[in-house]
Amino acid sequence: MKIKCCKTNMMAVQDTMDVLKGRWKIHIIAALCYDKMRFSDLQKEIEGISAKMLSSELKDLEINQLVKRTVLKAQPISVEYELTEYGYTLKKVIENLADWGVQHRKRIVGKVLEN
Amino acid sequence: MKIKCCKTNMMAVQDTMDVLKGRWKIHIIAALCYDKMRFSDLQKEIEGISAKMLSSELKDLEINQLVKRTVLKAQPISVEYELTEYGYTLKKVIENLADWGVQHRKRIVGKVLEN
Repeated sequence: MKIKCCKTNMMAVQDTMDVLKGRWKIHIIAALCYDKMRFSDLQKEIEGISAKMLSSELKDLEINQLVKRTVLKAQPISVEYELTEYGYTLKKVIENLADWGVQHRKRIVGKVLEN
Repeated sequence: MKIKCCKTNMMAVQDTMDVLKGRWKIHIIAALCYDKMRFSDLQKEIEGISAKMLSSELKDLEINQLVKRTVLKAQPISVEYELTEYGYTLKKVIENLADWGVQHRKRIVGKVLEN
């Protein structure tokens, strides 16, 4: 899809950026790309995220139909999260962002080391 | 590049998001994907952006080697901006974000209309 500098494209890009915005969502999606995970394991996997923040980000992802929540046990509560089939469609977007970021870092750091 | 939920990938994704962050950068890059543009034309093209904001965003993009600035005339000053060759490497990333956003909007809006 050729970039036409039209409103629909810009709105679409902004939609994706809104879904991925913030420091944590991409980490959560990338972690769940590997396997379903319990809340506690996810929190351990994503360094620095609080339980409250993780819970709120997962809720956003659920609303956007990217993540599914399953209650394994009620008492004490044990909950598991997994990417929905739809959630996996983000994998390519994230890989693309990661690929560009890796070469960007090399290029920018490379320049800094040169000077 | 398979998503390994390792630090390098997350850092790389964060690097790209940092380069694109904010409301305007993607619009500027998408506009310049078509052709080089003068500052005044860019400001007209990107609805709602102030001269001050456009100037600061263009500076960020220059620092990241994505945009080149050429002074056409000194008095009164007339400046032209264009994507660098490196800047064009973002085109695929932005198209990818736009593609995902278009289908996401259809899916989410479609669901809303169903209910």
